Amino acid sequence: MTDHQIYPVATGAAAKVVEQHQEPQDLVFHSGWRTWISLEEKSIPYKYNEVNPYNKEKHFLEINPKGLVPAIEYKGKALYESLILSEFLEDAYPSHTPHLLTDDPFNKAYIRIWIDYINKNIIPLNMRLIMAQEPEKQKAYLEEYTTALRTYTSKVKGPYFLGEEFTLADVAIAPWIMRDYVLSEHRGYNRAEVSPEWKAYADIVEKRESVASTFSDRKYLENIYDRYLRDEAQSEGAKALRAGRVMP
Amino acid sequence: MTDHQIYPVATGAAAKVVEQHQEPQDLVFHSGWRTWISLEEKSIPYKYNEVNPYNKEKHFLEINPKGLVPAIEYKGKALYESLILSEFLEDAYPSHTPHLLTDDPFNKAYIRIWIDYINKNIIPLNMRLIMAQEPEKQKAYLEEYTTALRTYTSKVKGPYFLGEEFTLADVAIAPWIMRDYVLSEHRGYNRAEVSPEWKAYADIVEKRESVASTFSDRKYLENIYDRYLRDEAQSEGAKALRAGRVMP
Repeated sequence: MTDHQIYPVATGAAAKVVEQHQEPQDLVFHSGWRTWISLEEKSIPYKYNEVNPYNKEKHFLEINPKGLVPAIEYKGKALYESLILSEFLEDAYPSHTPHLLTDDPFNKAYIRIWIDYINKNIIPLNMRLIMAQEPEKQKAYLEEYTTALRTYTSKVKGPYFLGEEFTLADVAIAPWIMRDYVLSEHRGYNRAEVSPEWKAYADIVEKRESVASTFSDRKYLENIYDRYLRDEAQSEGAKALRAGRVMP
Repeated sequence: MTDHQIYPVATGAAAKVVEQHQEPQDLVFHSGWRTWISLEEKSIPYKYNEVNPYNKEKHFLEINPKGLVPAIEYKGKALYESLILSEFLEDAYPSHTPHLLTDDPFNKAYIRIWIDYINKNIIPLNMRLIMAQEPEKQKAYLEEYTTALRTYTSKVKGPYFLGEEFTLADVAIAPWIMRDYVLSEHRGYNRAEVSPEWKAYADIVEKRESVASTFSDRKYLENIYDRYLRDEAQSEGAKALRAGRVMP
């Protein structure tokens, strides 16, 4: 099986949501779990279009020459980059609630700071941990990953990051909560061992409807994760980490 | 001279602006040229407080335990990260014009995408070029840097990035335009050789009052740049690049 054959087709719960989003709309959603969670949270009308990141369709490359994903197409023009897409949905659909960045300027900045922490620390450490092959490296990365999660958790007001409101910080971390069973099964990770507060937070985020309903089958995801676990993945992120470069 | 002794005291034109911002205000500006340009563009009342990044004062570390710069303090609470600070100023001071992110949701996202390009491509390449010691590496990085600038320039509508409006894209790149004489003097860079369009754009951005008035003496900056040119700088960014890590 090559990377070209295993692309993220939505399965399980996610397949049902895809079925409901086949009609043409101003907004075409091309890829990206975080963006998808935002769209579902805010009940924004969208058409779902799957992109095989290893074999991009011609129309997609016409609007987005570098083929970057996640991406959306808005009235025929492409936008990409996960946080930028989420911010765009807040700006372009102000009447759609909840406002995932809140309405308070200080809180907006605070949420952005912690999303930046997730992007620059938690996600690269998660990938390094999954891709690590030697037991001592796995142990060192697990410790670093645990420390990063504890740092994030120390800012979680509960039940969600900012308190009662579900915000873009929760959206940003949700995919890494939903897939952490891979770390439990293969890298000795355990939510409760990170901290009881982290476990409580993760358990609540994974039950959020917009998160649970866009999650594909574990069985399906295993094919993709197996390649990371053997350090054979050829995604841009995996290649960048291996080469010591910035994740794209 | 150690890094501890050469910290960014504003000199030249910049010193005059500092003088006018010594009174207490809700907003205390701690560091960051881009944030400073935004503050000046929008005529936001602020108190200027210099931070020596190598020897941070106690109060600054109390509100911002990691001592991250650029940073601002808003009613006693710290915020940091260049783009996040600029966005905060837009959100917290909506009546202050110009609106540097524009009022159009698509343009906002478009500006954010190209600021991301500046941050992830242009700035690390600029630093790699300055820090490169071997002539063949200098040549290779100059080519890469030139290509990145041309890619950015291809999106410049002129006179500014988005057309007549001065926006956060122009703010984001302005410091690297103002200091490009270092590359001209030491690394064979030339604005016109990048492209006539790049030269025209750079020549206009450097004349913008908010940019020119916050620029310190060349002579003063030389002390700092000399350490980068000899690859001896110990800033977090320099250390990260040397180790092949993500710039903080």
